[in-house]
Amino acid sequence: MKLYDSALAPNPRRVRIFLAEKGLEIEKVPVDLAKAENRSPEFLAKNPLGGVPVLELDDGTCLAETVAICRYFEETRPDPPLMGVDALDRARVEMWNRRMEFEVFLPIAQVFRNTHDFFKGRIPQVPAWGEVCREAAEKRLAWLDEVLGERPFIAGERFTIADITALCGIDFGRVTGIRIGSDQKNLARWHEAVSGRPSAGA
Amino acid sequence: MKLYDSALAPNPRRVRIFLAEKGLEIEKVPVDLAKAENRSPEFLAKNPLGGVPVLELDDGTCLAETVAICRYFEETRPDPPLMGVDALDRARVEMWNRRMEFEVFLPIAQVFRNTHDFFKGRIPQVPAWGEVCREAAEKRLAWLDEVLGERPFIAGERFTIADITALCGIDFGRVTGIRIGSDQKNLARWHEAVSGRPSAGA
Repeated sequence: MKLYDSALAPNPRRVRIFLAEKGLEIEKVPVDLAKAENRSPEFLAKNPLGGVPVLELDDGTCLAETVAICRYFEETRPDPPLMGVDALDRARVEMWNRRMEFEVFLPIAQVFRNTHDFFKGRIPQVPAWGEVCREAAEKRLAWLDEVLGERPFIAGERFTIADITALCGIDFGRVTGIRIGSDQKNLARWHEAVSGRPSAGA
Repeated sequence: MKLYDSALAPNPRRVRIFLAEKGLEIEKVPVDLAKAENRSPEFLAKNPLGGVPVLELDDGTCLAETVAICRYFEETRPDPPLMGVDALDRARVEMWNRRMEFEVFLPIAQVFRNTHDFFKGRIPQVPAWGEVCREAAEKRLAWLDEVLGERPFIAGERFTIADITALCGIDFGRVTGIRIGSDQKNLARWHEAVSGRPSAGA
Protein backbone atom coordinates (compact mmCIF):
# COMPACT_ATOMS: atom_id res chain seq x y z
CA MET A 1 0.00 0.00 0.00
CA LYS A 2 1.31 3.48 -0.80
CA LEU A 3 0.17 7.07 -0.53
CA TYR A 4 0.78 9.52 -3.37
CA ASP A 5 1.69 12.59 -1.43
CA SER A 6 2.80 16.21 -1.67
CA ALA A 7 4.58 18.21 1.04
CA LEU A 8 3.15 21.48 -0.31
CA ALA A 9 -0.56 20.77 -0.63
CA PRO A 10 -2.91 20.86 2.36
CA ASN A 11 -5.01 17.77 1.55
CA PRO A 12 -2.19 15.19 1.72
CA ARG A 13 -1.23 16.65 5.10
CA ARG A 14 -4.73 15.81 6.38
CA VAL A 15 -4.13 12.14 5.55
CA ARG A 16 -0.59 12.14 7.00
CA ILE A 17 -1.88 13.54 10.31
CA PHE A 18 -4.77 11.05 10.32
CA LEU A 19 -2.31 8.16 9.79
CA ALA A 20 0.04 9.47 12.50
CA GLU A 21 -2.86 9.66 14.98
CA LYS A 22 -3.69 6.04 14.13
CA GLY A 23 -0.06 5.03 14.58
CA LEU A 24 0.13 3.82 10.98
CA GLU A 25 3.19 4.16 8.76
CA ILE A 26 2.83 3.56 5.05
CA GLU A 27 5.06 4.17 2.06
CA LYS A 28 4.75 7.66 0.60
CA VAL A 29 5.43 8.55 -3.00
CA PRO A 30 6.04 12.27 -3.57
CA VAL A 31 4.18 13.83 -6.51
CA ASP A 32 5.71 17.07 -7.81
CA LEU A 33 2.76 19.40 -8.34
CA ALA A 34 4.96 22.30 -9.52
CA LYS A 35 6.14 20.05 -12.38
CA ALA A 36 2.51 18.92 -12.97
CA GLU A 37 3.38 15.28 -12.32
CA ASN A 38 -0.23 14.92 -11.18
CA ARG A 39 -1.31 15.63 -14.77
CA SER A 40 0.82 12.82 -16.26
CA PRO A 41 -1.01 9.90 -17.92
CA GLU A 42 0.41 7.54 -15.25
CA PHE A 43 -1.05 9.60 -12.44
CA LEU A 44 -4.37 10.25 -14.18
CA ALA A 45 -4.78 6.48 -14.48
CA LYS A 46 -4.79 6.43 -10.65
CA ASN A 47 -7.01 9.49 -10.25
CA PRO A 48 -8.65 10.89 -13.41
CA LEU A 49 -9.22 14.21 -11.62
CA GLY A 50 -5.49 14.63 -10.97
CA GLY A 51 -5.71 15.44 -7.25
CA VAL A 52 -3.50 14.30 -4.42
CA PRO A 53 -3.56 12.39 -2.13
CA VAL A 54 -4.25 8.99 -3.69
CA LEU A 55 -4.01 5.71 -1.78
CA GLU A 56 -2.95 2.71 -3.87
CA LEU A 57 -3.73 -0.66 -2.32
CA ASP A 58 -1.52 -3.73 -2.92
CA ASP A 59 -3.93 -5.06 -5.56
CA GLY A 60 -3.68 -1.79 -7.51
CA THR A 61 -7.03 -0.38 -6.38
CA CYS A 62 -6.76 3.40 -6.08
CA LEU A 63 -8.72 5.54 -3.66
CA ALA A 64 -8.81 9.30 -4.13
CA GLU A 65 -10.40 12.03 -2.00
CA THR A 66 -8.87 12.81 1.38
CA VAL A 67 -11.84 11.82 3.53
CA ALA A 68 -12.45 8.62 1.56
CA ILE A 69 -8.86 7.59 2.32
CA CYS A 70 -9.34 8.51 5.97
CA ARG A 71 -12.55 6.50 6.08
CA TYR A 72 -10.73 3.44 4.75
CA PHE A 73 -8.26 3.65 7.64
CA GLU A 74 -11.00 4.41 10.17
CA GLU A 75 -12.76 1.20 9.06
CA THR A 76 -9.65 -1.00 8.96
CA ARG A 77 -7.88 0.48 12.03
CA PRO A 78 -10.70 1.74 14.30
CA ASP A 79 -8.48 2.76 17.27
CA PRO A 80 -8.19 5.52 18.19
CA PRO A 81 -11.50 6.60 16.67
CA LEU A 82 -11.19 9.86 14.74
CA MET A 83 -14.61 9.85 13.05
CA GLY A 84 -16.92 9.24 16.02
CA VAL A 85 -17.73 6.41 18.42
CA ASP A 86 -21.44 5.65 17.89
CA ALA A 87 -24.24 6.48 15.42
CA LEU A 88 -25.02 9.97 16.71
CA ASP A 89 -21.37 10.82 17.37
CA ARG A 90 -20.35 9.72 13.88
CA ALA A 91 -23.05 11.99 12.46
CA ARG A 92 -21.90 14.87 14.68
CA VAL A 93 -18.26 14.44 13.68
CA GLU A 94 -19.37 14.32 10.02
CA MET A 95 -21.29 17.57 10.55
CA TRP A 96 -18.31 19.34 12.11
CA ASN A 97 -15.83 17.98 9.60
CA ARG A 98 -18.05 19.21 6.78
CA ARG A 99 -18.43 22.61 8.41
CA MET A 100 -14.64 22.81 8.62
CA GLU A 101 -14.35 21.74 4.98
CA PHE A 102 -17.00 24.00 3.47
CA GLU A 103 -16.66 27.01 5.78
CA VAL A 104 -12.92 27.09 6.57
CA PHE A 105 -10.76 24.84 4.38
CA LEU A 106 -12.56 25.43 1.08
CA PRO A 107 -12.75 29.25 1.19
CA ILE A 108 -9.08 29.41 2.26
CA ALA A 109 -8.13 27.11 -0.64
CA GLN A 110 -10.21 29.29 -2.98
CA VAL A 111 -8.31 32.40 -1.90
CA PHE A 112 -5.08 30.62 -2.84
CA ARG A 113 -6.39 29.27 -6.14
CA ASN A 114 -7.87 32.58 -7.25
CA THR A 115 -5.21 35.03 -6.08
CA HIS A 116 -1.83 33.27 -5.78
CA ASP A 117 0.87 33.30 -8.47
CA PHE A 118 1.23 29.50 -8.24
CA PHE A 119 -2.01 29.05 -10.19
CA LYS A 120 -1.46 31.92 -12.66
CA GLY A 121 -1.80 30.44 -16.15
CA ARG A 122 -2.70 27.00 -14.72
CA ILE A 123 -6.37 27.66 -13.98
CA PRO A 124 -8.77 30.55 -14.71
CA GLN A 125 -8.38 32.85 -11.70
CA VAL A 126 -11.09 35.24 -10.50
CA PRO A 127 -9.42 37.49 -7.88
CA ALA A 128 -12.76 39.09 -6.92
CA TRP A 129 -14.00 35.63 -5.93
CA GLY A 130 -10.81 35.13 -3.92
CA GLU A 131 -11.64 38.28 -1.95
CA VAL A 132 -15.22 37.12 -1.26
CA CYS A 133 -13.74 33.86 0.05
CA ARG A 134 -11.17 35.71 2.18
CA GLU A 135 -13.95 37.65 3.92
CA ALA A 136 -15.99 34.47 4.36
CA ALA A 137 -13.01 32.60 5.85
CA GLU A 138 -12.21 35.42 8.28
CA LYS A 139 -15.82 35.58 9.40
CA ARG A 140 -15.82 31.83 10.00
CA LEU A 141 -12.62 31.97 12.04
CA ALA A 142 -14.37 34.45 14.34
CA TRP A 143 -17.29 32.02 14.65
CA LEU A 144 -14.92 29.11 15.31
CA ASP A 145 -13.35 31.13 18.11
CA GLU A 146 -16.79 31.25 19.77
CA VAL A 147 -17.36 27.53 19.21
CA LEU A 148 -14.02 26.74 20.85
CA GLY A 149 -14.96 28.81 23.88
CA GLU A 150 -17.35 25.99 24.77
CA ARG A 151 -15.16 22.91 24.39
CA PRO A 152 -11.58 21.73 23.85
CA PHE A 153 -11.95 20.33 20.33
CA ILE A 154 -14.10 21.22 17.37
CA ALA A 155 -16.54 18.32 17.59
CA GLY A 156 -16.50 18.11 21.40
CA GLU A 157 -14.30 16.57 24.10
CA ARG A 158 -12.28 14.45 21.73
CA PHE A 159 -9.74 15.13 18.95
CA THR A 160 -11.30 14.15 15.60
CA ILE A 161 -10.91 14.49 11.84
CA ALA A 162 -12.68 17.87 12.15
CA ASP A 163 -9.66 19.22 14.06
CA ILE A 164 -7.34 17.89 11.35
CA THR A 165 -9.35 19.57 8.59
CA ALA A 166 -9.45 22.88 10.43
CA LEU A 167 -5.74 22.78 11.32
CA CYS A 168 -4.64 22.07 7.74
CA GLY A 169 -7.00 24.70 6.36
CA ILE A 170 -5.97 27.41 8.81
CA ASP A 171 -2.23 26.70 8.42
CA PHE A 172 -2.64 26.83 4.63
CA GLY A 173 -4.16 30.31 5.05
CA ARG A 174 -0.73 31.69 6.02
CA VAL A 175 0.33 31.63 2.36
CA THR A 176 -2.33 34.22 1.56
CA GLY A 177 -2.15 36.19 4.82
CA ILE A 178 -5.18 34.64 6.56
CA ARG A 179 -4.35 34.29 10.24
CA ILE A 180 -5.97 33.70 13.60
CA GLY A 181 -6.86 37.16 14.98
CA SER A 182 -5.01 38.43 18.05
CA ASP A 183 -8.37 38.62 19.87
CA GLN A 184 -9.31 35.01 18.99
CA LYS A 185 -8.00 33.49 22.23
CA ASN A 186 -10.00 30.26 22.08
CA LEU A 187 -8.97 29.55 18.52
CA ALA A 188 -5.34 30.34 19.38
CA ARG A 189 -5.45 28.01 22.43
CA TRP A 190 -6.91 25.20 20.29
CA HIS A 191 -4.38 25.84 17.51
CA GLU A 192 -1.48 25.63 19.96
CA ALA A 193 -2.85 22.38 21.41
CA VAL A 194 -3.42 20.60 18.09
CA SER A 195 -0.15 21.92 16.61
CA GLY A 196 1.65 20.51 19.65
CA ARG A 197 0.50 16.94 19.01
CA PRO A 198 3.26 14.81 17.46
CA SER A 199 0.96 14.09 14.48
CA ALA A 200 0.98 17.77 13.40
CA GLY A 201 4.49 17.42 12.02
CA ALA A 202 3.62 14.39 9.88
CA MET B 1 -37.79 13.63 15.17
CA LYS B 2 -38.32 16.23 12.42
CA LEU B 3 -36.58 17.48 9.33
CA TYR B 4 -36.39 21.21 8.58
CA ASP B 5 -36.91 21.18 4.87
CA SER B 6 -37.29 23.30 1.74
CA ALA B 7 -38.94 22.27 -1.50
CA LEU B 8 -36.79 24.71 -3.49
CA ALA B 9 -33.26 23.96 -2.31
CA PRO B 10 -31.29 20.98 -3.62
CA ASN B 11 -29.73 19.81 -0.33
CA PRO B 12 -32.98 18.97 1.48
CA ARG B 13 -34.00 16.95 -1.58
CA ARG B 14 -30.89 14.79 -1.10
CA VAL B 15 -32.08 13.87 2.40
CA ARG B 16 -35.69 13.30 1.29
CA ILE B 17 -34.53 10.88 -1.42
CA PHE B 18 -32.18 9.14 1.03
CA LEU B 19 -35.07 8.68 3.49
CA ALA B 20 -37.39 7.43 0.76
CA GLU B 21 -34.81 4.83 -0.32
CA LYS B 22 -34.58 3.67 3.31
CA GLY B 23 -38.37 3.50 3.55
CA LEU B 24 -38.39 6.05 6.37
CA GLU B 25 -41.07 8.70 6.85
CA ILE B 26 -40.44 11.52 9.26
CA GLU B 27 -42.16 14.80 10.00
CA LYS B 28 -41.05 17.65 7.74
CA VAL B 29 -41.16 21.31 8.72
CA PRO B 30 -40.98 23.68 5.74
CA VAL B 31 -38.54 26.60 6.06
CA ASP B 32 -39.30 29.55 3.77
CA LEU B 33 -35.90 30.55 2.35
CA ALA B 34 -37.39 33.36 0.21
CA LYS B 35 -38.64 34.96 3.45
CA ALA B 36 -35.24 34.26 5.09
CA GLU B 37 -36.86 32.13 7.81
CA ASN B 38 -33.52 30.29 7.94
CA ARG B 39 -31.95 33.52 9.24
CA SER B 40 -34.38 33.86 12.17
CA PRO B 41 -32.95 33.55 15.71
CA GLU B 42 -35.08 30.41 16.25
CA PHE B 43 -33.59 28.69 13.24
CA LEU B 44 -30.03 29.88 13.91
CA ALA B 45 -30.31 28.26 17.34
CA LYS B 46 -30.74 24.96 15.48
CA ASN B 47 -28.02 25.64 12.89
CA PRO B 48 -25.82 28.70 13.45
CA LEU B 49 -24.84 28.63 9.76
CA GLY B 50 -28.47 28.97 8.66
CA GLY B 51 -28.50 26.13 6.14
CA VAL B 52 -31.21 23.58 5.45
CA PRO B 53 -31.75 20.69 5.98
CA VAL B 54 -31.53 20.27 9.74
CA LEU B 55 -32.61 17.12 11.57
CA GLU B 56 -33.98 17.68 15.08
CA LEU B 57 -34.04 14.60 17.29
CA ASP B 58 -36.68 14.08 19.97
CA ASP B 59 -34.30 15.27 22.72
CA GLY B 60 -33.72 18.54 20.84
CA THR B 61 -30.30 17.58 19.44
CA CYS B 62 -29.89 19.18 16.01
CA LEU B 63 -27.83 17.77 13.18
CA ALA B 64 -26.99 19.94 10.19
CA GLU B 65 -25.14 19.12 6.95
CA THR B 66 -26.86 16.87 4.44
CA VAL B 67 -24.40 13.99 4.53
CA ALA B 68 -24.18 14.04 8.34
CA ILE B 69 -27.96 13.59 8.46
CA CYS B 70 -27.74 10.79 5.88
CA ARG B 71 -24.98 9.13 7.90
CA TYR B 72 -27.19 9.17 11.00
CA PHE B 73 -29.88 7.27 9.10
CA GLU B 74 -27.34 4.92 7.48
CA GLU B 75 -26.11 4.02 10.97
CA THR B 76 -29.53 3.65 12.58
CA ARG B 77 -31.32 2.04 9.58
CA PRO B 78 -28.58 0.18 7.67
CA ASP B 79 -30.89 -1.48 5.10
CA PRO B 80 -30.75 -0.91 2.22
CA PRO B 81 -27.14 0.29 2.41
CA LEU B 82 -26.63 3.57 0.54
CA MET B 83 -23.10 4.37 1.75
CA GLY B 84 -21.28 1.09 1.05
CA VAL B 85 -21.30 -2.47 2.36
CA ASP B 86 -17.76 -3.08 3.69
CA ALA B 87 -14.61 -1.08 4.51
CA LEU B 88 -13.33 -0.69 0.96
CA ASP B 89 -16.80 -0.15 -0.49
CA ARG B 90 -17.63 2.51 2.09
CA ALA B 91 -14.40 4.31 1.15
CA ARG B 92 -15.22 3.98 -2.58
CA VAL B 93 -18.75 5.34 -2.10
CA GLU B 94 -17.30 8.19 -0.05
CA MET B 95 -14.87 8.92 -2.91
CA TRP B 96 -17.61 8.98 -5.51
CA ASN B 97 -20.01 10.96 -3.36
CA ARG B 98 -17.30 13.55 -2.76
CA ARG B 99 -16.47 13.71 -6.45
CA MET B 100 -20.16 14.34 -7.15
CA GLU B 101 -20.26 17.00 -4.45
CA PHE B 102 -17.08 18.88 -5.34
CA GLU B 103 -17.11 18.40 -9.12
CA VAL B 104 -20.82 18.45 -9.99
CA PHE B 105 -23.10 19.67 -7.20
CA LEU B 106 -20.88 22.45 -5.85
CA PRO B 107 -19.99 24.15 -9.17
CA ILE B 108 -23.65 23.99 -10.24
CA ALA B 109 -24.68 25.56 -6.92
CA GLN B 110 -21.99 28.22 -7.40
CA VAL B 111 -23.39 29.13 -10.82
CA PHE B 112 -26.77 29.69 -9.16
CA ARG B 113 -25.38 31.64 -6.21
CA ASN B 114 -23.19 33.88 -8.35
CA THR B 115 -25.46 34.54 -11.32
CA HIS B 116 -29.11 34.10 -10.32
CA ASP B 117 -31.44 36.93 -9.31
CA PHE B 118 -32.56 35.01 -6.21
CA PHE B 119 -29.27 35.84 -4.49
CA LYS B 120 -28.99 39.43 -5.77
CA GLY B 121 -28.56 41.66 -2.73
CA ARG B 122 -28.46 38.65 -0.41
CA ILE B 123 -24.84 37.62 -0.92
CA PRO B 124 -21.87 39.17 -2.78
CA GLN B 125 -22.17 37.75 -6.30
CA VAL B 126 -19.19 37.33 -8.66
CA PRO B 127 -20.69 36.47 -12.08
CA ALA B 128 -17.23 35.77 -13.57
CA TRP B 129 -16.77 33.04 -10.95
CA GLY B 130 -20.20 31.68 -11.88
CA GLU B 131 -19.01 31.36 -15.48
CA VAL B 132 -15.82 29.53 -14.43
CA CYS B 133 -18.02 27.12 -12.46
CA ARG B 134 -20.41 26.67 -15.39
CA GLU B 135 -17.53 25.56 -17.63
CA ALA B 136 -16.19 23.29 -14.90
CA ALA B 137 -19.60 21.69 -14.36
CA GLU B 138 -20.13 21.10 -18.08
CA LYS B 139 -16.68 19.52 -18.38
CA ARG B 140 -17.46 17.22 -15.45
CA LEU B 141 -20.78 16.14 -16.96
CA ALA B 142 -18.85 15.03 -20.04
CA TRP B 143 -16.49 13.05 -17.79
CA LEU B 144 -19.42 11.55 -15.89
CA ASP B 145 -20.89 10.39 -19.19
CA GLU B 146 -17.69 8.38 -19.74
CA VAL B 147 -17.78 6.98 -16.20
CA LEU B 148 -21.37 5.83 -16.71
CA GLY B 149 -20.37 4.03 -19.90
CA GLU B 150 -18.69 1.46 -17.67
CA ARG B 151 -21.35 0.76 -15.05
CA PRO B 152 -25.01 1.33 -14.19
CA PHE B 153 -24.54 3.61 -11.17
CA ILE B 154 -21.95 6.18 -10.22
CA ALA B 155 -20.14 4.14 -7.57
CA GLY B 156 -20.65 0.78 -9.32
CA GLU B 157 -23.37 -1.86 -9.56
CA ARG B 158 -25.48 -0.45 -6.77
CA PHE B 159 -27.52 2.74 -6.25
CA THR B 160 -25.82 4.85 -3.56
CA ILE B 161 -25.73 8.31 -2.03
CA ALA B 162 -23.39 9.32 -4.90
CA ASP B 163 -26.30 8.90 -7.33
CA ILE B 164 -28.52 11.02 -5.09
CA THR B 165 -25.94 13.82 -4.93
CA ALA B 166 -25.42 13.80 -8.68
CA LEU B 167 -29.15 13.69 -9.45
CA CYS B 168 -29.97 16.62 -7.17
CA GLY B 169 -27.01 18.61 -8.49
CA ILE B 170 -27.80 18.00 -12.15
CA ASP B 171 -31.52 18.70 -11.74
CA PHE B 172 -30.68 21.95 -9.93
CA GLY B 173 -28.59 22.94 -12.96
CA ARG B 174 -31.78 23.41 -14.99
CA VAL B 175 -32.45 26.74 -13.22
CA THR B 176 -29.26 28.15 -14.77
CA GLY B 177 -29.42 26.32 -18.09
CA ILE B 178 -26.95 23.52 -17.32
CA ARG B 179 -28.22 20.35 -18.96
CA ILE B 180 -27.11 16.88 -19.94
CA GLY B 181 -25.74 17.17 -23.50
CA SER B 182 -27.65 15.48 -26.33
CA ASP B 183 -24.52 13.38 -27.05
CA GLN B 184 -24.20 12.24 -23.41
CA LYS B 185 -26.11 8.99 -23.86
CA ASN B 186 -24.76 7.20 -20.77
CA LEU B 187 -25.51 10.11 -18.51
CA ALA B 188 -28.99 10.42 -20.03
CA ARG B 189 -29.66 6.68 -19.54
CA TRP B 190 -28.53 6.92 -15.89
CA HIS B 191 -30.58 10.07 -15.33
CA GLU B 192 -33.70 8.42 -16.68
CA ALA B 193 -33.13 5.37 -14.47
CA VAL B 194 -32.56 7.26 -11.21
CA SER B 195 -35.32 9.77 -11.97
CA GLY B 196 -37.69 6.83 -12.48
CA ARG B 197 -37.16 5.47 -8.96
CA PRO B 198 -40.09 6.31 -6.64
CA SER B 199 -37.65 8.09 -4.31
CA ALA B 200 -36.87 10.77 -6.90
CA GLY B 201 -40.21 12.46 -6.31
CA ALA B 202 -39.71 12.68 -2.55
